[in-house]
Amino acid sequence: MADDGRRVAIVGAGLAGCLLAVLLGRRGVPVTVYERRPDPRIAGAERGRSINLAISARGLAALEQVGLRDQALKQALPMHGRMVHPRSGGRNFQPYSADGERAINSISRAELNRALLDTAEATTGVTLRFSQRVTGVDADAGAILLDGADTEPADVVLAGDGAYSAVRRSLDLNEDADFLEHGYKELTVPPKDGEFALDPDALHIWPRGTSMMIALPNLDRSFTCTLFWPKGDFTALGTPEEVTAYFERHYPDVAGLMPDLVDDYEHNPVGSLVTVRCRPWTRFGEGAAVALLGDAAHAIVPFFGQGANCAFEDCIEIDRCLTETDGDWRRALSLYQERRKPNTDAIAEMALDNFIEMRDRVSSPVYRAKQAATHALERRLAGRYVSRYELVSFSTMPYAEIPARISRQNRILAATVAGTALAGTAAVALAARALRRSGN
Amino acid sequence: MADDGRRVAIVGAGLAGCLLAVLLGRRGVPVTVYERRPDPRIAGAERGRSINLAISARGLAALEQVGLRDQALKQALPMHGRMVHPRSGGRNFQPYSADGERAINSISRAELNRALLDTAEATTGVTLRFSQRVTGVDADAGAILLDGADTEPADVVLAGDGAYSAVRRSLDLNEDADFLEHGYKELTVPPKDGEFALDPDALHIWPRGTSMMIALPNLDRSFTCTLFWPKGDFTALGTPEEVTAYFERHYPDVAGLMPDLVDDYEHNPVGSLVTVRCRPWTRFGEGAAVALLGDAAHAIVPFFGQGANCAFEDCIEIDRCLTETDGDWRRALSLYQERRKPNTDAIAEMALDNFIEMRDRVSSPVYRAKQAATHALERRLAGRYVSRYELVSFSTMPYAEIPARISRQNRILAATVAGTALAGTAAVALAARALRRSGN
Repeated sequence: MADDGRRVAIVGAGLAGCLLAVLLGRRGVPVTVYERRPDPRIAGAERGRSINLAISARGLAALEQVGLRDQALKQALPMHGRMVHPRSGGRNFQPYSADGERAINSISRAELNRALLDTAEATTGVTLRFSQRVTGVDADAGAILLDGADTEPADVVLAGDGAYSAVRRSLDLNEDADFLEHGYKELTVPPKDGEFALDPDALHIWPRGTSMMIALPNLDRSFTCTLFWPKGDFTALGTPEEVTAYFERHYPDVAGLMPDLVDDYEHNPVGSLVTVRCRPWTRFGEGAAVALLGDAAHAIVPFFGQGANCAFEDCIEIDRCLTETDGDWRRALSLYQERRKPNTDAIAEMALDNFIEMRDRVSSPVYRAKQAATHALERRLAGRYVSRYELVSFSTMPYAEIPARISRQNRILAATVAGTALAGTAAVALAARALRRSGN
Repeated sequence: MADDGRRVAIVGAGLAGCLLAVLLGRRGVPVTVYERRPDPRIAGAERGRSINLAISARGLAALEQVGLRDQALKQALPMHGRMVHPRSGGRNFQPYSADGERAINSISRAELNRALLDTAEATTGVTLRFSQRVTGVDADAGAILLDGADTEPADVVLAGDGAYSAVRRSLDLNEDADFLEHGYKELTVPPKDGEFALDPDALHIWPRGTSMMIALPNLDRSFTCTLFWPKGDFTALGTPEEVTAYFERHYPDVAGLMPDLVDDYEHNPVGSLVTVRCRPWTRFGEGAAVALLGDAAHAIVPFFGQGANCAFEDCIEIDRCLTETDGDWRRALSLYQERRKPNTDAIAEMALDNFIEMRDRVSSPVYRAKQAATHALERRLAGRYVSRYELVSFSTMPYAEIPARISRQNRILAATVAGTALAGTAAVALAARALRRSGN
């Protein structure tokens, strides 16, 4: 597919916008990327908005396609499991995979974005334009609107401008935005005596029922913590003393590791957690074909660590659809939507589910016993019984197929166990046989 | 309730914003109204965006409270019924009320807005600021954001900034925006030989199944027509000849009355029709109490002619709640939301229903027979059996009570008629007796 003279615009030079620019540039499609912020490689990132990323199988597969997988992994820290810090004290480590060997990878969003920007900039045909705010698209006129005033012609517009997408809003698409009652605030655990203050091989979770904190390791040996709490509750801590007292009471094993707690708490913003469901994702006007991708099409909550991974899959699918349709943009973008929508709907639900799991269930003994049994099954069955977490994080099975697969596994398991008076390893052995016979 | 020093901001100097400013000013509450457009009394209105209004009982009751009822009626043209122009030719008039005497009132949105602006400007304590775009509110800081840059302090923010409310979007409220597949385009029937070219005592409807046109009379003896059509279909008419041919074929009795048809069609924009459901309507931050009203809280489709009437009821309710709570803004705005939300949800559904009725059913003989029977019942029962249309348009019964009232009436009616072998007037007489006994 060569340059057919079409003017292709990507809105947003975030993770998805950059990856898509590289993919298109490599196809020989010239593309202009409009980004409302100044170049982050010069200007730096916003305070308290880092939202650490965990890149897993889907993201790595996408980065592989543009040759960035190894570089990304070099900047990342593997986390092989969850370290749960229960209210009652102590901590317990729960591996993410049955074999204990698979890991999700903590990486700085800013670093990964910089690497993608560098790659995009070095790709023939890709033009990056910073400090250019796209405020809308006129699909019939075939134009993008800059700052509500100037227009620039465009035949194809690919909008990766985030959960609050201005392009999406300008198209009058059906939209459902569901905000959690919870917001988030970032806090920091700096290195202690030059070393990680917590185990760097884990994603740390402090489940506290209505609130929850997580921490992901950074290359500089600090941790970025994210406190999730009903938005109204954040303002309840009015004084430095109240902030300190609250953390000492509810997060005693980490409060002492946060020397800047009060300053972070007072100055970092409270972010929102939104699920956006939009339909359709495309608009085919007289002048331009427009499609949304990433958070602009399907913002999800961060509790499965899949936002960026999922957005990268969008880019790969657009690229694949262009190949399959011989560069027919309208057919390609229709196909892209048709294939991706069920998958992004599925991960949106699973991400909401996982919030309950993380803030509550992971600390319960029943959950831990169940998880241990699951892992025992997984080990025994090597690929026939695989947990939801593994299918989401360590496979590239389409998200939409995962819930049915899990139900099927669980049905077989329940039927087997219910039909016997056995428990423990004997039940596992029987279930294993049943699953093997089912061809699951 | 006197000036308590609170800084009260109203966002949007549309119909609702102005009415609310007058009501608050009269309470002795100083208020600043921010409007992003220039003063429409100087700058004039936008092309093709007039959307004629039909003011009915609810709107008139509200205008009465600020002494504008009679002035509005003087600028309005009463429409006593629908004039249906069927596809098969001819036309039939269907009165809106059983007695044929009640009317909804066609009035220019721009004129009514000007009258409200004049009244607001003349009200002590009301300050109007034009060309000031409010882009958001920070409820914790107690500030409104102007053009994304400057801030101004505010303790109370009342947002009447329309279906695409910037205030609503800045608050991260849960929001569901449902766009109809249909858009609308305005066209004009000018006076013919100095006279109305159609009967000015009616709201004209050309029901055509997937498309529909309506026309409302203006004081200058023209009619403003609104064509509703699936958005994609508008662009199907590419040339002046195609436009003319289409109208001559589908709207033959009015095409000849539209000398500017082609120019209007080519230059007037295609508007969107959206239902916005948002929850909550309020945000009580550390610094400011914020509430949405009118389309900002609950944009509805125009097919029941209730958008402005409903927004005016919001203003009256806010004023009433302030009285009941002795000027306690937070309690007042909570109460306002609690009372109004079920009502605006109800009218939103009824407005969507009415689209089907207007574009399809009004032209069917069954519908006409049913409507005639309804009116016969209404006449016989004087207030016991009242049609949905009359309850919405000619009463101030809370919208939320109307669907249940109509179901009850219909149940009694059906039970009576089903239990007899009678038809026509005899059945009506029996139903009348049953309804009278039910105390409905």
